[in-house]
Amino acid sequence: MEKHPDDRLNSDADPFKGDPNFMASLARGLDVIQAFTPQRRMMSISQISQKTGIPRAAVRRCLYTLGKLGFVYAQDGKNFELRPRILALGHAYLASTPLARAAQPVLKHLSEMLNESCSIATLDGDDILYIARASSSRIMTIDLDIGSRLPAWATSMGRVLLSHLPEENLNDLLGRVTMIRYTSQTVDSVSALREELKKVQQQGYALNDQELEMGLRSIAVPLSNTRGQVLAALNVGVHAGQVSADELLSRVLPELQKAAQELSLLLD
Amino acid sequence: MEKHPDDRLNSDADPFKGDPNFMASLARGLDVIQAFTPQRRMMSISQISQKTGIPRAAVRRCLYTLGKLGFVYAQDGKNFELRPRILALGHAYLASTPLARAAQPVLKHLSEMLNESCSIATLDGDDILYIARASSSRIMTIDLDIGSRLPAWATSMGRVLLSHLPEENLNDLLGRVTMIRYTSQTVDSVSALREELKKVQQQGYALNDQELEMGLRSIAVPLSNTRGQVLAALNVGVHAGQVSADELLSRVLPELQKAAQELSLLLD
Repeated sequence: MEKHPDDRLNSDADPFKGDPNFMASLARGLDVIQAFTPQRRMMSISQISQKTGIPRAAVRRCLYTLGKLGFVYAQDGKNFELRPRILALGHAYLASTPLARAAQPVLKHLSEMLNESCSIATLDGDDILYIARASSSRIMTIDLDIGSRLPAWATSMGRVLLSHLPEENLNDLLGRVTMIRYTSQTVDSVSALREELKKVQQQGYALNDQELEMGLRSIAVPLSNTRGQVLAALNVGVHAGQVSADELLSRVLPELQKAAQELSLLLD
Repeated sequence: MEKHPDDRLNSDADPFKGDPNFMASLARGLDVIQAFTPQRRMMSISQISQKTGIPRAAVRRCLYTLGKLGFVYAQDGKNFELRPRILALGHAYLASTPLARAAQPVLKHLSEMLNESCSIATLDGDDILYIARASSSRIMTIDLDIGSRLPAWATSMGRVLLSHLPEENLNDLLGRVTMIRYTSQTVDSVSALREELKKVQQQGYALNDQELEMGLRSIAVPLSNTRGQVLAALNVGVHAGQVSADELLSRVLPELQKAAQELSLLLD
C-alpha cells in the first residue's frame, strides 16, 4: 500500500506530532466519528474538515474507510451520516465493564421508586462522562444520554469525583479550568469552588442547586468499590419547581446512599 | 512521521488489501476496540493480536494511540481495558439519530405496560444490531444490550427485516448464511426459512418460538418511516414458561403494532 501524504500529521497544534508510535490516521478516524452531533447528523467532507481541522483529503480517506467497514453511509454520495454499527464500539465497553452492567438495574429501580431521572458518571479528563442512566416517566425529563459529557466542576457528580481526587491532580485541573457563569447561582471563583469541594468531601454528597441551568437541581454521592476506591458518582436530577433542596436532602439522599451501597458490593 | 511496516496490510484474507484509499491503521484500531468482550475485558498485546489476527507490533501501536486519546488504559502497563470515553463514539450515533432518540420513551412505555423487555434493531450486514432497549423489572431479563448483534435469520426482528429486503439482496444473504441448529425448534433449511419469510411478510409480524434458545419466545413487527420504508424492527421477548405463543399474538402483538405506528409518525 502506498503511503498517502495525509498520513502525516500536519497540524502544528497537534500534541502528538512527530511521535512515531502515534497513529495519526486512527486518531483522525475517531475524530471524524465524533464530529457528528444531533445538530450535525449529516455532513459533507468539507463540513467535517472544517469542524475537525483535518484536511479534506484525509477526511475523504477516513470516510471511505469507515464506509467500507459499515460505520458511515452517504445515501447521496455526498452527505455522510453514522450507521448503527457505531454502537458496537460503545457496546464493547458497556458489555465488558462490571460497573456499567451492574448499574442499570439498580438505576432503574431507583428511578422508578423516586420517579426521577438517575445517572452514573465517571471522570474523563476534566469532564464527567455519563455511563448509565434511567429516566423517569415524566414527559419533561432531563436529556443527557450515555456517552455525553459535561464539565466536572459545574455538576454534582463532577464535584463528588473532584473531591476525591489526589490533591496534585485537583490542583492541576483547577489551574486550567475555565469557569462559566451558567446561571446567577453558579460558583464563580476557584476559591469558592475549593471551599465547596471540601464541604462535599466532608458531607459525602454534592448538591447542585440550579448552578448549571435554572430550574434544575441535582444531588450526587460517590460510588466506591469494595476496597473503598471511588470509581464513579451516582445522581438524581429534579425540576426545581417540583422538588425543593430540602426534599432532595430528606427524601432523595437516603435512597441514593442506599443504592450506592448496594452497587458498591458488586464492584471490586 | 516515518512509515511503520505495520501500516501495510499483510493478511491475504483482507478484502481491502491493495486499496490505496483504505486506511488499514484506522480499521485495525477499530478492530482492537471491538476485541474486548465481557469474557475478555482485560487483554495483553499478544492476546489481542491472537484474537484479531493483527500483528503484535501493530496492536502495540493501536493501543499506544488509543491510550493517548483516553480510550484504553493498562493499570499494570500490560493488561489493557477500555475506558468510558469509548461511549462517546456510540453517543455520536445515538444523539444524532432520530430513530434512537425517538425510540427510547416509546420502548419504555411499552415495556412498562407489558412488563416485558422490548428492543429495536436494524439490519447490519447479515446480523441484527440492537439500537434501543427497555427491560422489564423482572429479575430474569433477557440480557441483550445496545450495540450487540445476533444473526438476522435466527431472530424475530431479523426475519421481519429480511422479509422486506429486495429479492436480490435476500438471495445473496441466503446464499452465504450458515444455519446453526440452536435448538430442536430452529428452522433448519434455507427453503424452510424462505417459506417462513414469505409468511412473515404476509402477516406483518414474526414469531420466534424458542428457535434461538429454549425458554425464549419473541414477536417482532417492522418499523417504517412516514414514506413506508422499513428502517428497523421492534420486538418483545418473553419467557416461554410465562407467556404462551397464543398470548403473544392476542395480548402483545396489538400493543406492539400500536407502538410501531406511533414511532413511525416520528420518522421521516
